Amino acid sequence: MGNEIPQTKKTKIRRLPKRGVFDRDAIYKILDEAFICHVGFVIDGQPFVIPTGYARIGGDLVIHGSAASRMLRNLSGGIDVCVTVTLVDGLVLARSAFHHSMNYRSVVVLGKAVLVDDDSEKLTALEAFTEHIVPGRWTEIRWPTELELKATTVLRLPIEEASAKIRTGDPVDDEEDYAMDVWAGVIPLALRAGTPIGDKRQKKEIEVSKHVLNYRQK
Amino acid sequence: MGNEIPQTKKTKIRRLPKRGVFDRDAIYKILDEAFICHVGFVIDGQPFVIPTGYARIGGDLVIHGSAASRMLRNLSGGIDVCVTVTLVDGLVLARSAFHHSMNYRSVVVLGKAVLVDDDSEKLTALEAFTEHIVPGRWTEIRWPTELELKATTVLRLPIEEASAKIRTGDPVDDEEDYAMDVWAGVIPLALRAGTPIGDKRQKKEIEVSKHVLNYRQK
Repeated sequence: MGNEIPQTKKTKIRRLPKRGVFDRDAIYKILDEAFICHVGFVIDGQPFVIPTGYARIGGDLVIHGSAASRMLRNLSGGIDVCVTVTLVDGLVLARSAFHHSMNYRSVVVLGKAVLVDDDSEKLTALEAFTEHIVPGRWTEIRWPTELELKATTVLRLPIEEASAKIRTGDPVDDEEDYAMDVWAGVIPLALRAGTPIGDKRQKKEIEVSKHVLNYRQK
Repeated sequence: MGNEIPQTKKTKIRRLPKRGVFDRDAIYKILDEAFICHVGFVIDGQPFVIPTGYARIGGDLVIHGSAASRMLRNLSGGIDVCVTVTLVDGLVLARSAFHHSMNYRSVVVLGKAVLVDDDSEKLTALEAFTEHIVPGRWTEIRWPTELELKATTVLRLPIEEASAKIRTGDPVDDEEDYAMDVWAGVIPLALRAGTPIGDKRQKKEIEVSKHVLNYRQK
């Protein structure tokens, strides 16, 4: 495929390699659907994994710095990270315990995350975070002041060393187990939105915005 | 509180410490509700973060080894890991971009994961994985053979160095922004189960098990 991300020693899928995906479009599709990532980094040999929001801007991930405060102390020149994004699509219930599984789509991006300190680049990232999660929100809200920009940490990570793993479909049982009298199949799972709840200080006359009412996971 | 997990230098919550929770029961409650964790570990200085299933057995996490294949090569005496569990409860839409947030509950457990190699301990862990995700499933399915047990990797991580972070409730805007004409509040989010789909090789006469029909996130 022309749009394949080259495999490296680090991203090579060793376990169940048939689930591995290196197509850039397939990777972007997963990154664009999810909005929470888990950022892994190392301090004094100790791994840390912190959940945070992100967005994709072209070939870069921008990561919200709430995760970064700890790792950003004394940062210069970038820090090795692993950013993992996971969507759980279903529980795969087989006839044998061994073949129970999950349907999922996950992406792992490895690389050096660098601090975004240019104000306009930072603003673009904040717009991307907001629009990635709730499209249409950015134009309605008050944009960040200079001070707020300063108080926000944004990291940029090029999507260069990356892979996806995808499992879909039925359980795969051992041939002899198909004769068993046990229900087997998939319980689909998805992150769903409930009815929006206006905050206590909401002015009474304000209607719920369309982008809020129509909100759903893409 | 009597049931508090002692804070360490590593688990001390530096950012937004008021969201930090060290109560063991509160931590267990989150661990018992979610079923996917992100395991972080380090190889040659490079962090990796892999999603996988887990269960809690008393004061231990047991982690499914699918995540572990890479890190388990040449493992002896345990490996430093960070296991992070995240539940996303809602999008917090404020009047200003800066105060947009999420409602979430997350747990971070640090420590040395050790390989479980005793067969009966392994079987207990597999039962816990299954029952944690779909209570009632274990008694209906074919249990692992000796060979299957051998092919399954299980790690055990004591829940000793751990913390939770929780955000709930309304957005918190700057005082002057409450006058704005923009809808603000929370879009609740939850992982929901859809209608179970029997697999293609399902015998026609088999009814969907109660534990499948009644499945829902706790």
